Amino acid sequence: MKLNVVVAEAALELVPTELQRTTVVRNDSLRRGVNPSRMLLDRSFHHVAMLKLKDDFKRGRPDIVHATLLSLTSTPLYLDGFVTVYVHTHGDIVLEIKEGTRLPKSYLRFRGLMEKVLSEGGGEGLITMRKATIRELLKDIQPDWVCGLSTQGVSMSLEELSGKVIARKNPCIMIGGFPHGHFSSETLKQVDELVRIHSRPLEAHVVAARLLYVIEKRIEEKRTND
Amino acid sequence: MKLNVVVAEAALELVPTELQRTTVVRNDSLRRGVNPSRMLLDRSFHHVAMLKLKDDFKRGRPDIVHATLLSLTSTPLYLDGFVTVYVHTHGDIVLEIKEGTRLPKSYLRFRGLMEKVLSEGGGEGLITMRKATIRELLKDIQPDWVCGLSTQGVSMSLEELSGKVIARKNPCIMIGGFPHGHFSSETLKQVDELVRIHSRPLEAHVVAARLLYVIEKRIEEKRTND
Repeated sequence: MKLNVVVAEAALELVPTELQRTTVVRNDSLRRGVNPSRMLLDRSFHHVAMLKLKDDFKRGRPDIVHATLLSLTSTPLYLDGFVTVYVHTHGDIVLEIKEGTRLPKSYLRFRGLMEKVLSEGGGEGLITMRKATIRELLKDIQPDWVCGLSTQGVSMSLEELSGKVIARKNPCIMIGGFPHGHFSSETLKQVDELVRIHSRPLEAHVVAARLLYVIEKRIEEKRTND
Repeated sequence: MKLNVVVAEAALELVPTELQRTTVVRNDSLRRGVNPSRMLLDRSFHHVAMLKLKDDFKRGRPDIVHATLLSLTSTPLYLDGFVTVYVHTHGDIVLEIKEGTRLPKSYLRFRGLMEKVLSEGGGEGLITMRKATIRELLKDIQPDWVCGLSTQGVSMSLEELSGKVIARKNPCIMIGGFPHGHFSSETLKQVDELVRIHSRPLEAHVVAARLLYVIEKRIEEKRTND
């Protein structure tokens, strides 16, 4: 089993053109000494300017993406090569984290890396970037099962879900990489099963940590029983 | 059961006096517009200056402390009031996170909060600060069991560990909040049991996420059985 995890509709993007001349963005740009076109959109700093954006409540949260990627890539399952991690962004850009890549734990280093990748189209061979919708990404991955995690899904325990995952050869799990709201209808169309794993909404990094832990346990149990 | 989690010997501190006049710290201070005495020590920026510090390999990693606190405080167990979170720093300062406090997910906001708390001795009622060793902190908590998690400990599954935790009224678990090395001998003296939960060393935020997940599951099972 090789698990594909897609952090979907992730709130990660460069400052869009229409916000680059706003006061908050220009001030942030001056403070940082970075051109607005090469800066990550960040709600913490660009809140006022973001209010005009479409879907603003789902965008500009690189901190959420960072925490989720750290949760995924710090696990034994990832480190042992069982997991491929993709980030699909709100703007239909796909980043693929090359197997074994250790992402910066320092947010400021992560921000620098993401700004480089998104501005220059890739990052030193460790991260590849391309324009792709969820549908196009899944065409490449060719998963034998696509499961989206969402509070709108059917309730299922993580144990049961993990059993389904390890029964497949090339499953794909999608975790929303945004702070509020739900998957878009475009994303939902690509999902075979939509699953809710907890009675409350959980943050993406919590979902990521739990999912990979329980799958790891199931793989261990299977090995012991075989 | 009320669980106390101590992030122990955490790599969180203000820039120590002896480094405040070094070139890298002064440059960072100028760039940020913050006095060196009010800045967090951060390996990402102050590496060269830190090489002279005692125990430098265990210090200056606020990113690790942030990730670990987010892992702890984003869990249903914490949000439901079952967990009190303490940070004990390398320099014997104790921060207590007041029940229900949501910490900033944005690292830059977290850094600002921690710099305020450590410089001014507390943070808007949500975080209290005092000088205290691990021994003094435990005198306050009065736990009925103190368990340290360490690769030097006795191997035990998280399930077994969680069973022990929920059998107590006021247990305390210590997770090391540093990147390398082990608990100090002072810390080890305060521990009733030293436990290793995985065949590989795990990062503190991974340990935190797994620990609270498995305890949550055990509490649910117990409720169902009662």
